[in-house]
Amino acid sequence: MSVEELQQAKKAVDFSRESLESVLKRRFFYAPAFELYGGVSGLYDYGPPGCAFQANIVDVWRKHFVLEEDMLEVDCTMLTPYEVLKTSGHVDKFSDWMCKDPKTGEIFRADHLVEEVLEARLKGDKEARGLASDANADADTDAEKKKRKKKVKEIKAVKLEDAVVKEYEEILAKIDGYSGPELGELMVKYEIGNPVSGDKLEPPRAFNLMFETAIGPSGQYKGYLRPETAQGQFLNFNKLLEFNNGKTPFASASIGKSFRNEISPRSGLLRVREFLMAEIEHFVDPTNKSHKRFPDVKDIKLRFLPRDVQQAGSTVPVETTVGEAVASKLVDNETLGYFIARIYQFLIKIGVDPERLRFRQHMANEMAHYAADCWDAELHTSYGWIECVGCADRSAYDLTVHANKTKEKLVVREALETPIEVTKWEATLVKKLFGPKFRKDAPKVEARLLALTQEELESYSAELKKDGKITLKVEGMEGEVEVDDKMVSIEKVTNTEHIREFTPNVIEPSFGIGRIIYAIFEHSFWSRPEDTARAIISFPPLVAPTKVLLVPLLNNPELAKITAQVSQTLRKEQIPFKVDESGVSIGKRYARNDELGTPFGITIDFDSVTDGSITLRERDSTKQVRGSVADIIKAIRDVTYQGVSWEEGTKNLAPFNTQAETD
Amino acid sequence: MSVEELQQAKKAVDFSRESLESVLKRRFFYAPAFELYGGVSGLYDYGPPGCAFQANIVDVWRKHFVLEEDMLEVDCTMLTPYEVLKTSGHVDKFSDWMCKDPKTGEIFRADHLVEEVLEARLKGDKEARGLASDANADADTDAEKKKRKKKVKEIKAVKLEDAVVKEYEEILAKIDGYSGPELGELMVKYEIGNPVSGDKLEPPRAFNLMFETAIGPSGQYKGYLRPETAQGQFLNFNKLLEFNNGKTPFASASIGKSFRNEISPRSGLLRVREFLMAEIEHFVDPTNKSHKRFPDVKDIKLRFLPRDVQQAGSTVPVETTVGEAVASKLVDNETLGYFIARIYQFLIKIGVDPERLRFRQHMANEMAHYAADCWDAELHTSYGWIECVGCADRSAYDLTVHANKTKEKLVVREALETPIEVTKWEATLVKKLFGPKFRKDAPKVEARLLALTQEELESYSAELKKDGKITLKVEGMEGEVEVDDKMVSIEKVTNTEHIREFTPNVIEPSFGIGRIIYAIFEHSFWSRPEDTARAIISFPPLVAPTKVLLVPLLNNPELAKITAQVSQTLRKEQIPFKVDESGVSIGKRYARNDELGTPFGITIDFDSVTDGSITLRERDSTKQVRGSVADIIKAIRDVTYQGVSWEEGTKNLAPFNTQAETD
Repeated sequence: MSVEELQQAKKAVDFSRESLESVLKRRFFYAPAFELYGGVSGLYDYGPPGCAFQANIVDVWRKHFVLEEDMLEVDCTMLTPYEVLKTSGHVDKFSDWMCKDPKTGEIFRADHLVEEVLEARLKGDKEARGLASDANADADTDAEKKKRKKKVKEIKAVKLEDAVVKEYEEILAKIDGYSGPELGELMVKYEIGNPVSGDKLEPPRAFNLMFETAIGPSGQYKGYLRPETAQGQFLNFNKLLEFNNGKTPFASASIGKSFRNEISPRSGLLRVREFLMAEIEHFVDPTNKSHKRFPDVKDIKLRFLPRDVQQAGSTVPVETTVGEAVASKLVDNETLGYFIARIYQFLIKIGVDPERLRFRQHMANEMAHYAADCWDAELHTSYGWIECVGCADRSAYDLTVHANKTKEKLVVREALETPIEVTKWEATLVKKLFGPKFRKDAPKVEARLLALTQEELESYSAELKKDGKITLKVEGMEGEVEVDDKMVSIEKVTNTEHIREFTPNVIEPSFGIGRIIYAIFEHSFWSRPEDTARAIISFPPLVAPTKVLLVPLLNNPELAKITAQVSQTLRKEQIPFKVDESGVSIGKRYARNDELGTPFGITIDFDSVTDGSITLRERDSTKQVRGSVADIIKAIRDVTYQGVSWEEGTKNLAPFNTQAETD
Repeated sequence: MSVEELQQAKKAVDFSRESLESVLKRRFFYAPAFELYGGVSGLYDYGPPGCAFQANIVDVWRKHFVLEEDMLEVDCTMLTPYEVLKTSGHVDKFSDWMCKDPKTGEIFRADHLVEEVLEARLKGDKEARGLASDANADADTDAEKKKRKKKVKEIKAVKLEDAVVKEYEEILAKIDGYSGPELGELMVKYEIGNPVSGDKLEPPRAFNLMFETAIGPSGQYKGYLRPETAQGQFLNFNKLLEFNNGKTPFASASIGKSFRNEISPRSGLLRVREFLMAEIEHFVDPTNKSHKRFPDVKDIKLRFLPRDVQQAGSTVPVETTVGEAVASKLVDNETLGYFIARIYQFLIKIGVDPERLRFRQHMANEMAHYAADCWDAELHTSYGWIECVGCADRSAYDLTVHANKTKEKLVVREALETPIEVTKWEATLVKKLFGPKFRKDAPKVEARLLALTQEELESYSAELKKDGKITLKVEGMEGEVEVDDKMVSIEKVTNTEHIREFTPNVIEPSFGIGRIIYAIFEHSFWSRPEDTARAIISFPPLVAPTKVLLVPLLNNPELAKITAQVSQTLRKEQIPFKVDESGVSIGKRYARNDELGTPFGITIDFDSVTDGSITLRERDSTKQVRGSVADIIKAIRDVTYQGVSWEEGTKNLAPFNTQAETD
């Protein structure tokens, strides 16, 4: 059926997260890891259909971005030394706030706890007032309620003061923006303790979310599992630039696991401790963020939720084209706009429902420590709107901090067409005077003077003229150091420069593959009003785990022979398929595979023996057509890999009618 | 050129590891990770060509094994709880022996140290005797000597007693087989200390090679980074079996990173701390290890190096077909033989030189703790023969230990065609008597009795008859426990069984992708006698990082237009390509890409503007042909993806002669 018909059909029966989860579990799309040992929260294994689905999405990602855009893909290690992540800011800032119950030893994530307790009180208040729960109820399935009950033991119908209700609502609206101490104050003010016993908790303290380990046998070389793939790309910047013959803009890309030691993982695949990321770092001249392929995407219409709209308390998106969004400065520049559009195209291609996708700009207080601006592709699920792709402008932050720390230049050098005159303050040292005065510290003093900023130079120049000397702090030396005007002169100098040197800015589209996968599960899951017990997962054929189910009508040697022949052809064509020779009815066999999201079925019957023809069935419409093995496989290939529609791909095949599938 | 011609051409110029490493570094195939921060030994990043090569190998692996054999691929977490790896044996046995220098704090891997010191002494002895170094010198390039010198500071020309030389040689031949205490004894006996200072070292102690971390915020839940992907597959066995409708044999597969905290990594990509593995776990009935596709591979001829040949001190392989090897019990069973053959086919497909591949059987003392038998695919490199693929029979070890630990059955249940009579010892308990006697310990005693083995039951049966009671130890209870014949009876019982229940055996082909990649680098690297400064890496087109280099003759708008058209076609066909529009000569541009292993080059010249024809160049032979864009691209596609030879694929295209490439 057409995309529109399918979207319509999906709405006919209400979505049930419990039904979806039951199918995903039964068909082993994924399962809690180490279930045999009781499981570890936040860790999941993908079974065969989940793993194949993930591999297909990665494959499409690689073609859509790396191949199509000629990006430089790298594969960097996950183990990362302390010093790198100290420099990047992750050691100090990549943390959540946690509170411990001193009696039980239980640990709670502070913001989640405040949020859940206040929400529970507001619900209790509504109950006491005899009102229904709030309009956001679509995020509250029974399963979710059950889960939440574990923390907030029971919702007591207690009426609150009107003023308190208002305070709670305001706090909840800003819950992502509080610091640890502020959360602590809220917990004291509103008497938020252990939700089961009510006991007071310790004040929130920062818990770093990186997994720590020791590299090598001494145990002293501290390292972490990377929290993102980005750092490996930044550290290889000079090699990548050289590989690209010194030219910008260019992008690197990386696909791999990252890690986050969540305090209390929840929401299934949406918040896990080990996850697959696909990240792009696009390095661009800060003075020119145009993109040569921007015209290709400028007419794509998207839903934007800008910062100011959110600040005004609204969630109504602005619908406009990417071209308009950039022209009006809603989106800062062409490169950012280009990637937002390309992210959209990718997500639609792999099965995201466009009606449930929006781009939300980060509020100033929720951005990561390195980001200058950030737009998230958010996908709507039964858990609410979920950030699945971030598209951040990291400015020159990372390259700058690593360059400062390692004293290695991480810059682009560009020949200027016309040389320019540059006037700058410069310090000139009389080096032979430094040794006698500073001994072993001489190199430190020299380095300090040569590293002065333009502002410092200007001010020291005045000091030098006035006092005949300057005093300054030097790292690694005690007290202040004095240097006189015989040792150093500071002057304004005009030079002709032929090379422009700059630290590129970085635009970073960053994909959380697991979250995207879960959202697509929800967006693709439906059932028919006449048969709600049977579920269908309508993956696009391109990313479906298996493309074809091969079904011989009966267990019979003649049919088995043809099955083997068709199998061989499919294998040769590298079209992933499964054979189902179980004795159950054709309808039951197809039903099983509708749950696996297999888009096509081939039936082999006794007419196949006579005339070599086979039947092809389409999953969503259950329409069937008949033709030769070659023609049927060509149709499968065209629809799966060439983007041809079912109608177009099967127009030369004969329609085929069979009995209803409900037997 | 043909495969044989290429093999011949490669031998014309001596291999130099230094030249290869220089190309791999210059072209950013890979580089030490965190080089900007001084690097971390044993950690490497893959740059764009290395990353693409790795991705292509993984893709071929997936098609060759998972798709072709209908395996169940899973993706399991790397973070693994302590208890799982305690049960699997890795906490206790996955370790190397290390020695610490108490003065300097330096740490040495004991077996490597003994090996290097004794080898150095033997060399010094030869020098003193005025003899050349030994015949194994092919493993000792200059680079390797340089590296080794770091540990063994200098080789002193000291003559040894003849008897000592013999002792040293015997020790070196068995170096992989010593335990830690034995290595410690050798170090005392032969006065092996810090090779620089000569100072005595602490006795060897076991160093576990797993990276440890803590999961969750309390810091008390200990975990490791997995040392292999296999455990995740074993733990999901029941789910996989159900997914396969309860039928064996079947195989699961997994591709992902594993970790090994090497004491002192060396030999570049061959011994690293984080590495990509691809592992298959084939679950098979222990009483029937036949393989239905064995006939497909039985005529493949391979080089086997069996255990007894090695024990006799020889390294001359046995050349025979897989069919013969299995028939003669050289290889234990069809399934093992089938996988050995399939490993061979895979390695050849991705560029391994068949002349430098052998299958070596593990000696009894070198097998991993879980293995019942093991054959390694070893690839010859300048470092010697390197284990790149293991093919182990893990018997029922893993499933059994996990089932025992978790009390969950990990078995296959097979309906018997004809029911069988089974006579077994059985204990029958009078449960109501246990509570009054053992109180809270009653369940332990009951469980102990029900878990008795057949041997124990037989012996206790006699004891019970004789004494009217039995005594036995029960875990978690002090002393011995007495149970009399009123509480338990032990009898031989004959039952009719309709179901056979068994723990499957596991055949495990396990691929170290990084090692294979390095071996292929060496096997593919060569240069022409007439131009040794230019290197060529002859990757098979199927796995080459980039398939085509697009070269416009000059920087010219008309040529640029055609370049853009050809680019678009290649992109649409998803053939990875690069454009080189730099001003340097065509020859230089091709030379650069010969180093990157790009198999094809397309030249666009002014005839292309007139008649639309383009030139196609083949990397190894430098032969050129000319034809239309469509015909040239078809030839590229056929040779790259369809396994068609260059001669066959280009037979309808016109030969094209141009000036020599050395300009």
